[in-house]
Amino acid sequence: MTAEEMITVATDSGITTLTLNQPENRNSLSMAMLQALSDRLSALAEDPETRVIVLAASGRVFCAGHDLKEIRSQLDSHEFQLELFNLCSKVMQQIVNLPKPVIARVAGVATAAGCQLVASCDLAVAADTARFATPGVNIGLFCSTPMVALSRNVSRKHAMEMLLTGEMVGAIKAERLGLVNQVVDEQVLDETVNRLAATIAGKSGHTLKIGKEAFYRQLEMGLADAYDYTSEVMAKNMQAADAQEGICAFLDKRKPEWKDE
Amino acid sequence: MTAEEMITVATDSGITTLTLNQPENRNSLSMAMLQALSDRLSALAEDPETRVIVLAASGRVFCAGHDLKEIRSQLDSHEFQLELFNLCSKVMQQIVNLPKPVIARVAGVATAAGCQLVASCDLAVAADTARFATPGVNIGLFCSTPMVALSRNVSRKHAMEMLLTGEMVGAIKAERLGLVNQVVDEQVLDETVNRLAATIAGKSGHTLKIGKEAFYRQLEMGLADAYDYTSEVMAKNMQAADAQEGICAFLDKRKPEWKDE
Amino acid sequence: MTAEEMITVATDSGITTLTLNQPENRNSLSMAMLQALSDRLSALAEDPETRVIVLAASGRVFCAGHDLKEIRSQLDSHEFQLELFNLCSKVMQQIVNLPKPVIARVAGVATAAGCQLVASCDLAVAADTARFATPGVNIGLFCSTPMVALSRNVSRKHAMEMLLTGEMVGAIKAERLGLVNQVVDEQVLDETVNRLAATIAGKSGHTLKIGKEAFYRQLEMGLADAYDYTSEVMAKNMQAADAQEGICAFLDKRKPEWKDE
Repeated sequence: MTAEEMITVATDSGITTLTLNQPENRNSLSMAMLQALSDRLSALAEDPETRVIVLAASGRVFCAGHDLKEIRSQLDSHEFQLELFNLCSKVMQQIVNLPKPVIARVAGVATAAGCQLVASCDLAVAADTARFATPGVNIGLFCSTPMVALSRNVSRKHAMEMLLTGEMVGAIKAERLGLVNQVVDEQVLDETVNRLAATIAGKSGHTLKIGKEAFYRQLEMGLADAYDYTSEVMAKNMQAADAQEGICAFLDKRKPEWKDE
Repeated sequence: MTAEEMITVATDSGITTLTLNQPENRNSLSMAMLQALSDRLSALAEDPETRVIVLAASGRVFCAGHDLKEIRSQLDSHEFQLELFNLCSKVMQQIVNLPKPVIARVAGVATAAGCQLVASCDLAVAADTARFATPGVNIGLFCSTPMVALSRNVSRKHAMEMLLTGEMVGAIKAERLGLVNQVVDEQVLDETVNRLAATIAGKSGHTLKIGKEAFYRQLEMGLADAYDYTSEVMAKNMQAADAQEGICAFLDKRKPEWKDE
Repeated sequence: MTAEEMITVATDSGITTLTLNQPENRNSLSMAMLQALSDRLSALAEDPETRVIVLAASGRVFCAGHDLKEIRSQLDSHEFQLELFNLCSKVMQQIVNLPKPVIARVAGVATAAGCQLVASCDLAVAADTARFATPGVNIGLFCSTPMVALSRNVSRKHAMEMLLTGEMVGAIKAERLGLVNQVVDEQVLDETVNRLAATIAGKSGHTLKIGKEAFYRQLEMGLADAYDYTSEVMAKNMQAADAQEGICAFLDKRKPEWKDE
């Protein structure tokens, strides 16, 4: 299977859907899958046709986390393992640092690094059949990297419960905990994701880039620093053509025409 | 309209209500409105009659955020814009740093910096008709300063959804997300806010000052530092007349008499 | 009453239950009770029979916080007070830093430092009769140390409401706010806690130790640092005998045998 086949890509009206496409391997994040995902994300960051990214998966499992068979074949190679976890952490941060919004479209099971993938996306929509877990504790390998993303979505007692028990959390509870934005009947999952993605694709790409970057940066600051930083971001944003167009269009009661700059 | 008319002030039994009073301008945070609010807050910080502040608004819109007409009239002045966003950020931090609790009383729509105002208050009570949004993305100007307050109230996926889509969130959902404490029928909004404010106004003002300041400071610390800091705060609080009175009154089963010191 | 009687200890199948046992004193955290708890926790950290700790209480009050009579008897001793709050903060951090999971089993009222105790545990299960408050504000002594734990469990407006009003929060609301994981009928409280504890006691103790430590450490880091740190934690975890056993057992579809190393 080539990298192109492992993750398929399709763009329509500014929305690019990346589909994890190894259902026979439960869409596991093998080294090859992670590299393919990293390459896809890097390319989409620069792709002028892509305004919003949807991360989906084929088959009944969204993503089962790391490929345990691959890991077992390298049990003695600390070097391989460190490379694997570093690449995985890099991919998760690529999603956060990507200048375009990323929406997870989750049907089926998302576990371990698969759950982390959902937690790392800016937004997530799940089918009512979706289920989530961080079950590394069951195999002696605590979900220590997945919990970085999980604990930044979910309050600490709930994150701890998932991490210490390894048990599955259903879609409705995942929504209540903050891991996904919305849960819908699987039959309307695509429709719901597309509507959400289309709403966002209709915004100025330049504005989305400014906002997403500032969002994650200010989260790591104290209040005073966050305000100093974002006040400058807003004043600079005001100088952009799209802000000036947007404000004038709003006051003139017409639809804005974005230049994405 | 004078600054005194833009924001009215009324004090009763230790509760001071500030009312944004430009309904014809959707209570927008123009430079003049922000300055008036800043001045009012500074004065109330020192006012011995004020124990708790309620932030309210007249008309069907709580606050629509910045005054876009004013911004358009200064589209070329980076200096004006920076001053505006800095003043706005200053006012939001004044609320947080004020030595007295501030309660938002929200009926109607609170958008952009208006939503930020609600998020910046210590507590918020909303009518069931209240609605919230950070719609800057719709006009090319991402709500980068509002998100500082929003993302410190609401978990990140929900904050991101509001910021990326710009869509309205109803009162019930806002309560679930953590943006407001309570939602009530609009007919009992004043009664509910007054009861909450009166409960807090009955506490020692000195104790509230100590507690509010320590709350926001310790939030920005790691666990060990937060405990070192608050352990000292408590030991110092113990030396205050009101703590000694409060403990004795409790053990003697009588009502304490606060000296606010 | 000896220290051994103040907090009883019982171990069964890897689960050690510590029971606060001064119901006639509302299980208050007097200096002696805090010292007894600290000693018990230190001992259990090293105890090879203990895999999971349950923190329970006898009587109708889980824990009423500090012992106000004791505090009153030392009103003039700043030294005593500082020692008391420092010891209390030390005990709370012992729970967080303990290399084994700690579950609060809450029936009845948990207030002030008693509420903090629940918030400091990794997990908490409450009876539907449980109630929580941080009422220090009512006696002029703001719950400044309890709020360190509370505000790391509960979103800030809800934490502020508890701190400023001092009012009771019922079990169901406490669960919604994130203060407890689960609420059950008091008649099945023991059964529920035991099942949860047994689930966790069945994991590798070495893995639990690695994971719990990493969880709280990464929470205090920025995203990039958290990933650098946890990627190394995972790669190191992979070298542990239990991870290698767990992965092989999973792939071989057999039950793992932990060596706790």
